[in-house]
Amino acid sequence: MNSINSSDDLRTDKFSKYIEEFEIPFTLNLERGDQLENVKVAYETYGELNQDKSNCILVCHAITGDSHVAKHDENDVPGWWDIMVGPGKPLDTNKYFVICSNILGSCRGTTGPNSINPKTGKYYGADFPVVTIKDMVIVQKYLIDHLKIDKLLGVIGGSLGGFQCLEWATQFPDKVEGCLPIASSSRLTTQGLAFDVVARNSIISDPYFNSGNYYENDKKPDVGLALARMLGHITYLSRESMNDKFEIDRNSPRDISTSFEKKFSVGSYLAYQGEKFVERFDANSYITLSTALDLFDLGATKELLSENLSKSHCEWLLISFTSDWLYPAFQSLDIVEALISHSKKVSYCNVKSNAGHDAFLLKEDIEHYGELTKSFFNKLNNKSKLKGDVKKLDSTVKIGLNNRIDFQYIAELIPEKSSILDLGCEEGELIEQLSTIGISRALGVEINQNNVISCFAKGINVIHSDLASRLEKFYDSQFDVAILSQTLQAIKNVEKILKEMTRVSKSSIVSFPNFAFKPMREMFYNEGKAPKISGWYGYNWYDTPNVRFPSINDFLEFCEEKDISIKESLYLDTLNNKKITDNPNLNADSAIFVIS
Amino acid sequence: MNSINSSDDLRTDKFSKYIEEFEIPFTLNLERGDQLENVKVAYETYGELNQDKSNCILVCHAITGDSHVAKHDENDVPGWWDIMVGPGKPLDTNKYFVICSNILGSCRGTTGPNSINPKTGKYYGADFPVVTIKDMVIVQKYLIDHLKIDKLLGVIGGSLGGFQCLEWATQFPDKVEGCLPIASSSRLTTQGLAFDVVARNSIISDPYFNSGNYYENDKKPDVGLALARMLGHITYLSRESMNDKFEIDRNSPRDISTSFEKKFSVGSYLAYQGEKFVERFDANSYITLSTALDLFDLGATKELLSENLSKSHCEWLLISFTSDWLYPAFQSLDIVEALISHSKKVSYCNVKSNAGHDAFLLKEDIEHYGELTKSFFNKLNNKSKLKGDVKKLDSTVKIGLNNRIDFQYIAELIPEKSSILDLGCEEGELIEQLSTIGISRALGVEINQNNVISCFAKGINVIHSDLASRLEKFYDSQFDVAILSQTLQAIKNVEKILKEMTRVSKSSIVSFPNFAFKPMREMFYNEGKAPKISGWYGYNWYDTPNVRFPSINDFLEFCEEKDISIKESLYLDTLNNKKITDNPNLNADSAIFVIS
Repeated sequence: MNSINSSDDLRTDKFSKYIEEFEIPFTLNLERGDQLENVKVAYETYGELNQDKSNCILVCHAITGDSHVAKHDENDVPGWWDIMVGPGKPLDTNKYFVICSNILGSCRGTTGPNSINPKTGKYYGADFPVVTIKDMVIVQKYLIDHLKIDKLLGVIGGSLGGFQCLEWATQFPDKVEGCLPIASSSRLTTQGLAFDVVARNSIISDPYFNSGNYYENDKKPDVGLALARMLGHITYLSRESMNDKFEIDRNSPRDISTSFEKKFSVGSYLAYQGEKFVERFDANSYITLSTALDLFDLGATKELLSENLSKSHCEWLLISFTSDWLYPAFQSLDIVEALISHSKKVSYCNVKSNAGHDAFLLKEDIEHYGELTKSFFNKLNNKSKLKGDVKKLDSTVKIGLNNRIDFQYIAELIPEKSSILDLGCEEGELIEQLSTIGISRALGVEINQNNVISCFAKGINVIHSDLASRLEKFYDSQFDVAILSQTLQAIKNVEKILKEMTRVSKSSIVSFPNFAFKPMREMFYNEGKAPKISGWYGYNWYDTPNVRFPSINDFLEFCEEKDISIKESLYLDTLNNKKITDNPNLNADSAIFVIS
Repeated sequence: MNSINSSDDLRTDKFSKYIEEFEIPFTLNLERGDQLENVKVAYETYGELNQDKSNCILVCHAITGDSHVAKHDENDVPGWWDIMVGPGKPLDTNKYFVICSNILGSCRGTTGPNSINPKTGKYYGADFPVVTIKDMVIVQKYLIDHLKIDKLLGVIGGSLGGFQCLEWATQFPDKVEGCLPIASSSRLTTQGLAFDVVARNSIISDPYFNSGNYYENDKKPDVGLALARMLGHITYLSRESMNDKFEIDRNSPRDISTSFEKKFSVGSYLAYQGEKFVERFDANSYITLSTALDLFDLGATKELLSENLSKSHCEWLLISFTSDWLYPAFQSLDIVEALISHSKKVSYCNVKSNAGHDAFLLKEDIEHYGELTKSFFNKLNNKSKLKGDVKKLDSTVKIGLNNRIDFQYIAELIPEKSSILDLGCEEGELIEQLSTIGISRALGVEINQNNVISCFAKGINVIHSDLASRLEKFYDSQFDVAILSQTLQAIKNVEKILKEMTRVSKSSIVSFPNFAFKPMREMFYNEGKAPKISGWYGYNWYDTPNVRFPSINDFLEFCEEKDISIKESLYLDTLNNKKITDNPNLNADSAIFVIS
């Protein structure tokens, strides 16, 4: 059987020798009313804290993770995120001071159900209180205070780690410069909840569970915990990745010693994973943490979510994975939408991946999500270079690369300090150009993943999405100016896009090539062939990205029919860099309209 | 909490009083080498067997089903498929004689692990042998023989029931006129297998399971079986349908008496379903049947699947559901592809549904899959009206409804007895027309679900799919003639479609409107607007279904460039119903090409 490149295979049941411990010197009041005394926090750090303590990144781990996020040196045992944390890695420990602490309620060093209750001198067991994500984050906050760090450069984490990021940004908005939840959501889907219910029931139904008081018994609820782990494991992988890994020898289970069923390669794999898991994890902790996961709810409705996220002040990047069905992409987009509704600085990418929820732990797609992460912290780190209210882009970005005359004209149409929505922003060239005139903020929407990554590398906020479904989500008049630059001709549902863009902006700018441009007309009329000249018209009829071929007059007629009012119009001969006033429908190769 | 309209809610743990019993009068030799004696089969029948015994439909039930498929009268308890079986229903008991038998290994009347082993006088328990889908079908065959039915009009079933259908069609090809597997596949995905592994492990890990020998004990492995059921239940629903049902009161569990966790509405629902299930189902049967499910494998590779399906002689209809993630649509399409490769008569529809795998048991989408089922059995029932080798359509179909002159010209280009592939067949008008000239067989490919249902109601075989992904799957020269009629202009990837259609057919016919038709040119040239005249050209530039606008000359040039040879060409003025020979690129409104 193929081995699976799971984070688990890298794990050790030994505690890292680099663990440091901090004890909270007072009573911890929990969200649900209980209290905990003498809470211990196990944590590890990587890199050096700089002089002004501004380079600290908190990594938040997922349900079964711990503080050992990466190797501390070449001889150290692997960590669960070695691919991300280390010198030259996306979380570059040559630049950043990285902290990872074991979460409250876990069993990997921080206080949890398998700790001794100082009040009784016995294991907490069933007496360990319900803890929430908020409680976990408050414990992390005490740790940060203890380390005398006033503000985190960023918080980052996947899955349950993402929940902690969300909680940080909303509970301690002044303490976080940037928030990067990966493969996460504002709350579990019902389906996710249901899997957790079955997993917990398999633990509490184990006869050795003994209502959670098993620490002094010979037998522990290992079978129930292993079953819970097996089930969890299925949900972390995609259907495709499971097929890829286990189809080749479907009926040939690995010969392992197990009390579980010995059928099918995937069966022996799950049994192995389940049995290995119980060596390093505690059943009560699993119940405690999965309950915290299930209780997390940043907002059951759009309104509540929006209200909660309105508290944040930080920069945001959200990353989801296309094949993650446990934390599906639309949930990240819900968060993005809520943030945008409050004009927060947010970017989003739905990284194409075959690996399912576990993608954030695997190297397969690191090229993409690692690059995004690196850009995000670069941006935060360079933030001090950007000044004032009016946004200027990172000075390393080369401006006006492409010498697009239409961009210059568009720039002239935009009032200073406007907020901009660029629909189909490609690699962000227009936003770069606009940044030279001083806009208050700009957001791009772009469907192509590589373009999104390029935009983001330039420091441009961008949402990875198609236009139609994204436009629907914006509020009325949310932006000063929405721009559809040379994109109209590639859109099938013209009416919807134009109506939506005029709804979400105070004014909209639409530019497109004029297909009734004289040489086009002549070519079609005389030669009887789909016209093809250079530039925007330089495509073959059979593989052009264009699907709509409007003329200036078509557009004017359309606007009249659909009650779209034209505020300004500008007709260009871009080849000769001049404005056209005489019969533009014949003489202009492109047009720019301001509509509303 | 909302109730869920699950088949289970309709179920009773009592056996139907209409059950009949048949005992197989000799030893049953099982596929895996074991034997069973005195096998009893519990079955129920509905409707009347006609004189020539040609109206019998066998319904195959899913893993936890039984013989009580529907009410026998108004006072009877509900059956699991009341929506499908009864007078006037899709399986119309006024026309058909419907049989449903409990499957081998179950616990609802047919011999299974909870039966007495005649050799020992004790319950089989752990001694019950591994049975396969093939064994189940052989038992059904004995029942059919016993009822003196030589040939089934059809077999139909969802999920595990679909597996039985597939087995019938391939093991007893001469005994089945039609096969209708719903929400099924040729084998489980690895993910499906993995869920079953966890479910069985939860049963065998139950301390009361006692290696399967628990019938004489006070306590049974109810907890393990309930956990298995809970897990199964999640996989039968879609993420969307779970959200729809449980989000409204997410944190308000129903107050039920249960030993399981009492959190979340979905949690109480699952606990309730789990505990109710153990009242009517046996743990050993669950293991036996889920093992049979997991072992079913009609072909691990495309080649093996194709080889196995080549044995079938029947008509096929396959139905999948868009939100079914346990038996995803692509698996049904794999079967369709294998059948088409052997020129089997097959249709397929991927019914849009929100309900997940359970969709086939629910009334939500019956409008669509019920209609397809009805059409399928109508077609089989009317089959005797169709004669000879050359296919003629059902005489009730009205021919030449739409008076499309281009269809007549296309018909003239097609040799008699050709096999036809109509790409983008819409409601099947062209195939209807072609049927008047005597073609050997016709297959349509169509993306629109309602069109697919309409085609199928006319008796036309049709595959519900987009063109590009379907064309890829056909073999070289699989059809005599492939037709792309008035569809070219709506296709973005022109080159791929044309290359593929010429690959899969001996000759291809392409018809399209000539966008360089004189009035179009003049309008564009003189008015400078996207031309719009009546008919094919009668669309607005902003919402036309067309995305490509080729002229005759464009197409000719394209073919030359791409090494596509033009065998025949025909230029039409369809308004005046005449052929054009003089400057067709100017004077013809449409063109028909035969290419290869």
